[in-house]
Amino acid sequence: MAGVRFISFEGVDGSGKTTQLRALAARLRASGTEVVETREPGGSEGAELIRRLLVEGDPARWSPETEILLFTAARRDHLERTIRPALARGATVLTDRFADSTRVYQGVGRADLQGADLRETVDALHDLAIGVEPDLTLILDIDPSVGLARGLARGGAEDRFERLGTDFQLRLRAGFLALAAEFPERCRVIDASGTAEEVAARVAAEVVG
Amino acid sequence: MAGVRFISFEGVDGSGKTTQLRALAARLRASGTEVVETREPGGSEGAELIRRLLVEGDPARWSPETEILLFTAARRDHLERTIRPALARGATVLTDRFADSTRVYQGVGRADLQGADLRETVDALHDLAIGVEPDLTLILDIDPSVGLARGLARGGAEDRFERLGTDFQLRLRAGFLALAAEFPERCRVIDASGTAEEVAARVAAEVVG
Ligand SMILES: Nc1ncnc2c1ncn2[C@@H]1O[C@H](COP(=O)(O)OP(=O)(O)OP(=O)(O)O)[C@@H](O)[C@H]1O
Ligand SMILES: Nc1ncnc2c1ncn2[C@@H]1O[C@H](COP(=O)(O)OP(=O)(O)OP(=O)(O)O)[C@@H](O)[C@H]1O
Ligand SMILES: [Mg+2]
Ligand SMILES: [Mg+2]
Repeated sequence: MAGVRFISFEGVDGSGKTTQLRALAARLRASGTEVVETREPGGSEGAELIRRLLVEGDPARWSPETEILLFTAARRDHLERTIRPALARGATVLTDRFADSTRVYQGVGRADLQGADLRETVDALHDLAIGVEPDLTLILDIDPSVGLARGLARGGAEDRFERLGTDFQLRLRAGFLALAAEFPERCRVIDASGTAEEVAARVAAEVVG
Repeated sequence: MAGVRFISFEGVDGSGKTTQLRALAARLRASGTEVVETREPGGSEGAELIRRLLVEGDPARWSPETEILLFTAARRDHLERTIRPALARGATVLTDRFADSTRVYQGVGRADLQGADLRETVDALHDLAIGVEPDLTLILDIDPSVGLARGLARGGAEDRFERLGTDFQLRLRAGFLALAAEFPERCRVIDASGTAEEVAARVAAEVVG
């Protein structure tokens, strides 16, 4: 796809975002493209500091509203310090999550647990502080129980979201599919089942054609 | 003043906010009032973690926009976890800085250094995520060179803002006075020169009458 230089990978935990981002980066580099691989929350020095506040500790440490503010602060830093400079010098940027994750995790996922819809707050903050979307968003779609099993196999301290369980992941999957329907121009749903190589071929078909 | 239970202390660095807050708290307690003393950025467990990101390190670590988002996130946590519960149980809350500091420091102070006015962003975020003001705001007004001399005498690691110098503090003083004119119902300008006891008498005259 011509002119597509800012690509986000989205999907539930363990859907294969990091694996597929790396595979696409390798493929693009092999064809001579400068690629910047990055991730959210994080992706810049300041945003990584904010990430630590978000992913470590008690899941109830932050209220949904405070969490959205912190994600937006991290995204603003990431955009200013990593994404914009890379795009300005002509590089292609692949990011492991971007604003859609906040829309789905905070706007849909946690709101259901609380009975309040936070999507409006997420959108208002995005308009105010971020204001850009990727050229292309690849939504890796998979049965959450498969994704969760892949993820739990890894362990690690950043399990705050994963500990929220399969029900939560089911809502997230539905949230990502609804988002793909809401933004059909930039979103593509990718079947993320099968081997990593099979999924990589589907991703490449969308990006390289 | 009847019904005044949420009071903020504002003013340039070293104007005497912390000193006067403590004096007023002691006075109110002596008359049997439950008082919660708090501060910004900080004032709750999460907000204190965000405070560390804000006050330590290189003054250019965060862009003005990211800084405003972080201050707002910290304020939201402070409001939810400390201020609202205290007011709900009938306590009086004295806070060392609140939203006016963000309006002045980020909206006026840093914008002048950059040639962009950030006050609109500060206000939009406040409306979205905070939405309340103190019942009474005491603006401690002093020649910034006096305040800076008092402050520098203390030392410490939290000197990110103070290192910005006297010119910056002069803009801040003007910013606080402009704010007092903008919100005359809740703001009172207090002459903060003279001894701590003299200033405390002026503060008490405003609060207790
Ligand atoms: N197609 C696949 N089949 C089987 N295992 C896979 C596949 N893709 C990735 N994995 C493995 O599953 C785990 C999760 O994959 P990956 O880290 O890429 O997912 P993710 O979407 O980035 O997860 P998270 O949201 O937790 O970061 C990893 O251990 C990875 O090696
Ligand atoms: N009226 C006063 N005269 C002289 N010194 C004072 C007076 N009030 C406070 N001080 C001293 O000046 C220093 C700064 O006062 P204080 O910490 O109360 O100011 P502040 O407005 O809280 O400053 P900051 O914004 O840096 O927190 C302290 O060392 C304090 O003891
Ligand atoms: Mg990953
Ligand atoms: Mg102080």
